Amino acid sequence: MGARPDELARHYQDALLNDVIPFWERHSIDRECGGYFTCLDRRGNVYDTDKFIWLQARQVWMFSALYNRLEKRPEWLDIARHGADFLRRHGSDDDCSWYFSLDRQGNPLVEPYNIFSDCFAAMAFSQYALAAGDEEAKRLAQTTFQNILRRRDNPKGRYSKAVPGTRPLRSLALPMILANLVLELEWALDPGQVAGTIDACLREVMTLCLDEERMLLFEHVAPDGSHVDCFDGRLICPGHGIEAMWFIMDLAGRRGELFDPRATKNSPPKDGEALVEKAVDVVMSTLEFGWDKECGGIFYFMDADGRPPEKLEWDQKLWWVHLEALVALVMGYSLTRRQECWEWFETVHDYAWERFPDPEYGEWFGYLSREGNVFLPLKGGKWKGCFHVPRALWRCSEELSKLPDDVQS
Amino acid sequence: MGARPDELARHYQDALLNDVIPFWERHSIDRECGGYFTCLDRRGNVYDTDKFIWLQARQVWMFSALYNRLEKRPEWLDIARHGADFLRRHGSDDDCSWYFSLDRQGNPLVEPYNIFSDCFAAMAFSQYALAAGDEEAKRLAQTTFQNILRRRDNPKGRYSKAVPGTRPLRSLALPMILANLVLELEWALDPGQVAGTIDACLREVMTLCLDEERMLLFEHVAPDGSHVDCFDGRLICPGHGIEAMWFIMDLAGRRGELFDPRATKNSPPKDGEALVEKAVDVVMSTLEFGWDKECGGIFYFMDADGRPPEKLEWDQKLWWVHLEALVALVMGYSLTRRQECWEWFETVHDYAWERFPDPEYGEWFGYLSREGNVFLPLKGGKWKGCFHVPRALWRCSEELSKLPDDVQS
Repeated sequence: MGARPDELARHYQDALLNDVIPFWERHSIDRECGGYFTCLDRRGNVYDTDKFIWLQARQVWMFSALYNRLEKRPEWLDIARHGADFLRRHGSDDDCSWYFSLDRQGNPLVEPYNIFSDCFAAMAFSQYALAAGDEEAKRLAQTTFQNILRRRDNPKGRYSKAVPGTRPLRSLALPMILANLVLELEWALDPGQVAGTIDACLREVMTLCLDEERMLLFEHVAPDGSHVDCFDGRLICPGHGIEAMWFIMDLAGRRGELFDPRATKNSPPKDGEALVEKAVDVVMSTLEFGWDKECGGIFYFMDADGRPPEKLEWDQKLWWVHLEALVALVMGYSLTRRQECWEWFETVHDYAWERFPDPEYGEWFGYLSREGNVFLPLKGGKWKGCFHVPRALWRCSEELSKLPDDVQS
Repeated sequence: MGARPDELARHYQDALLNDVIPFWERHSIDRECGGYFTCLDRRGNVYDTDKFIWLQARQVWMFSALYNRLEKRPEWLDIARHGADFLRRHGSDDDCSWYFSLDRQGNPLVEPYNIFSDCFAAMAFSQYALAAGDEEAKRLAQTTFQNILRRRDNPKGRYSKAVPGTRPLRSLALPMILANLVLELEWALDPGQVAGTIDACLREVMTLCLDEERMLLFEHVAPDGSHVDCFDGRLICPGHGIEAMWFIMDLAGRRGELFDPRATKNSPPKDGEALVEKAVDVVMSTLEFGWDKECGGIFYFMDADGRPPEKLEWDQKLWWVHLEALVALVMGYSLTRRQECWEWFETVHDYAWERFPDPEYGEWFGYLSREGNVFLPLKGGKWKGCFHVPRALWRCSEELSKLPDDVQS
């Protein structure tokens, strides 16, 4: 690579503003029924019209955030409102629990079994409330957030298939997402609740789910943080772990002092700086563990002990994994100036930019085989929407533009 | 290929008796806690000890069936009893609903949400009852079968996430499995119930789920058999469709006369012979559709309209898909003598035998990439056990041994 940070910052911002965002502006707006199309093929043609709450909410968040934090373009606020109105009208049941999916018209298809639908809805309405000065949106974000906290110890509720008691597990996913969400909603929450939630998230992510010897985050652990020898208990998702670490760096920068070291094993860091160093350590060891030495790229799922993973997609290379790694690495470098962060940033940057973007039709491909070939030529689907690509391009360009020119690996 | 049917019959039987069955005899018996280990790595070492009801039951069935239909080896009956005792002790709740999985000791891990656990349990206890002359096993098979019929219109029960009414779908999987199961249990059921179940299965598989223009089986259709334009509604699983067709050939050979043509659209075949021809037509068109013209092998999942499939594993080549195709093709040839059946049999045989078997450590690999390379070097796991490989080797050798010597493609 060898490019200077300011050149890179322009490169990332150019891709954001002149390629990725225009792709979604052009192809994703459902002017007839409201909301967004997210199932877009390589050229941007709609190949399925169902509406998945995760992706509807994430796009509302994305356009609201661009409006709030990058530039007050009225068309961005319009697009955010277009999705927020659809979600408000159709997205939740009477208890303000968010469905998983709707049909094109907004009729509910899949029940509110998935707490992350609620997480992304809260994130969307909070950011949109700031953009539009919309008090009802703010209340919707607040109510949804309280619902999430109430459900957090049993997030799947009646849909849980685990027999109670046999093998209790705690999971990384929810505290990790909450670590990000609580900062998103901080402006609309009681400060005591913010502090308590941050404290709990830090404990669950950095102590419970973190194996301090291997410096790897496990997706599932026993309630005391020990490992459970089963498929779920051995599961490592490098992309998840790395993404969680930049959420933690965000927290550390603003809330490091809130972390209570007495609640943990092995004296974790007490202050923001030590927490950032630890988060970067985890990013480094996760990349060492999750990088495919043979073909390049970061594996999707791995077994901590090297046994055969359960998931058939384990060796695929996914867009979001690489984008989250870029954000974590540039943030890690910016906060610690550790040389290895910059070296890894260059490695992941080169891998990703060579393979994921589609100069011909815009946006990024999402799904590469182990060898790095596109095996699903879509730009959006049930899980890929207007979120990871623009969020990462924006965060990276922002962080890169703050770096001095003399970075050299 | 070009081998003679009698040579091929010996080849399949040799693999069954001197490679595959010994692998499971040697590695899968849990002498300490009962039941079987199914998570076996390439060499047969146990890498996970959880016990999945599908696989426990299928192995009980397999060893019982070999004992009943191939050779009365006492050690086969012992192995079947070893699993049947474990299942009887731990596998079901008080309502005789079968859990999805247990831990090594037999403590329930995952609730009885999956009706196919019940299907394979019924199949296991029926075949075991015949082998062991065990009346209690027979009653268990009968009770479980009645449970399945009672649950069949709402198989997921309280675990269903579909919002009732918005998009009702009928699925291929259950009637397809029932078509096989009802013949397995015929000896223990009321003949009127057998006839009624066969009639319903034929209607659902050969009329409701079958697209008569494309001659493809859809995994999900509207209640009137029309197509629904969504991910589920466009889903084709060629392996499923082909496996269903040899179940139908089995039915046609014994029960063709029971099929009521008045209950269907477009006058379906009324007799066994026409039903077999139709089943073979479906096998042919499914292979034409599902065969990977570039790399060889049969795709795992496809979108009927060529849009991007939802499932990330869509282009992988799975052991069971190819084995079920071999059974369907040799049966189809045996019953119709259609030359194209034999040609496809040779094509699939050559593809599968070149890539799936592991001469070094025995048994077959399960999971190949699109290009045909092993990407999960396990011999058994959460979904692969002692079932598809031995069942297909046995059925093929049986059918091949009945063919005349002059088959030539």
